[in-house]
Amino acid sequence: MNFLEEKILQDGFIKPGNILKIDSFLNHQIDIDIIRQIAYELKRRFRGVEVNKVLTIEASGIAIATMLGNLYDVPVVFAKKNETANSTDDKYMSKAYSFTHKKQNNVFVSRPYLHATDKVLIVDDFLADGQAVHALIDLVHQAGGKVSGIGIAVEKGQQQGGKILREEGYHLESIAIVESMDWENQTIRFREQPAFALGDCNLKTPFY
Amino acid sequence: MNFLEEKILQDGFIKPGNILKIDSFLNHQIDIDIIRQIAYELKRRFRGVEVNKVLTIEASGIAIATMLGNLYDVPVVFAKKNETANSTDDKYMSKAYSFTHKKQNNVFVSRPYLHATDKVLIVDDFLADGQAVHALIDLVHQAGGKVSGIGIAVEKGQQQGGKILREEGYHLESIAIVESMDWENQTIRFREQPAFALGDCNLKTPFY
Repeated sequence: MNFLEEKILQDGFIKPGNILKIDSFLNHQIDIDIIRQIAYELKRRFRGVEVNKVLTIEASGIAIATMLGNLYDVPVVFAKKNETANSTDDKYMSKAYSFTHKKQNNVFVSRPYLHATDKVLIVDDFLADGQAVHALIDLVHQAGGKVSGIGIAVEKGQQQGGKILREEGYHLESIAIVESMDWENQTIRFREQPAFALGDCNLKTPFY
Repeated sequence: MNFLEEKILQDGFIKPGNILKIDSFLNHQIDIDIIRQIAYELKRRFRGVEVNKVLTIEASGIAIATMLGNLYDVPVVFAKKNETANSTDDKYMSKAYSFTHKKQNNVFVSRPYLHATDKVLIVDDFLADGQAVHALIDLVHQAGGKVSGIGIAVEKGQQQGGKILREEGYHLESIAIVESMDWENQTIRFREQPAFALGDCNLKTPFY
């Protein structure tokens, strides 16, 4: 079991309707040590992959994206979202339906912040249906850029986002993949992933 | 002139209506080196101040808050906002009017993430009328915690937020304070602040 799976078992809980609540360390309160480890682990999994920009979507992806931008020493861009359609003259714009908030959002990035020369690592805290990630991919492609990879903290393996993205050929890495949850017993089963030796993480590099 | 004032002059521009646009490095695209320096500089200015939590508000404060939480090695909490009133059973809730978006937002933090023992450094990218910061102060006080200080990247010195917070006795540090802007000539005047020797920043500490 990796550090994030352990943390989820330790501090997460399952709400009725099989909703995984981990906002005590990931997306409301942020456990800075966990976010650091997520950034390290994603960088390690994308070893050898060229990245000159990190892209996420507001709001909860920003912490991980910032730590990862810090590690890569590259700019971070966070796509903005709103409900109302806007002039797209100066923006790349896409759409994402949020199942959580039951609404369609416009997702956009100002044109100067995405380029045809960009090799973009897309990151987010959660991956479920993949609507947000697909919108981000769309924005990168509109700019003529390349998606180097997609790095996720927690993938909901029962939903289709991860499956579709892998079938589309994207290099997707999710640190924890929740295969199933049981609200009554408060148990979580994670998808088995290749084990990673701790030594791989290069924890000797001081982080701050 | 400090690093942030220089960066504003170099990469910012003034839009009609005296709106300062610096989203190329602060709050849409993030120049990771600038955010790092902002975190260092705020930590330096709050030297000797006890901080066990960093609090900000989504979305654009999260990057600075994450870097600062990383430096202090303390948890980061970002308050959430929405327009619709909600049950407050499990939340501390306050209100902030956004002049930018011309709407009143509820600002809230889940109760478990603020405590009476907290010594909170509140941070944000911009300070104008101080509505968001006052809402965050309110949340800390509702929890019985203490506001250790308020750290801001860019303060709009012509608006009242900074003045009021200082009069209220808060330790407020804004790295750049815009005293006036002239759209026609694209000039910005900054409020003079005490000069800081670069040596103070302890740049020898490796950051990543």
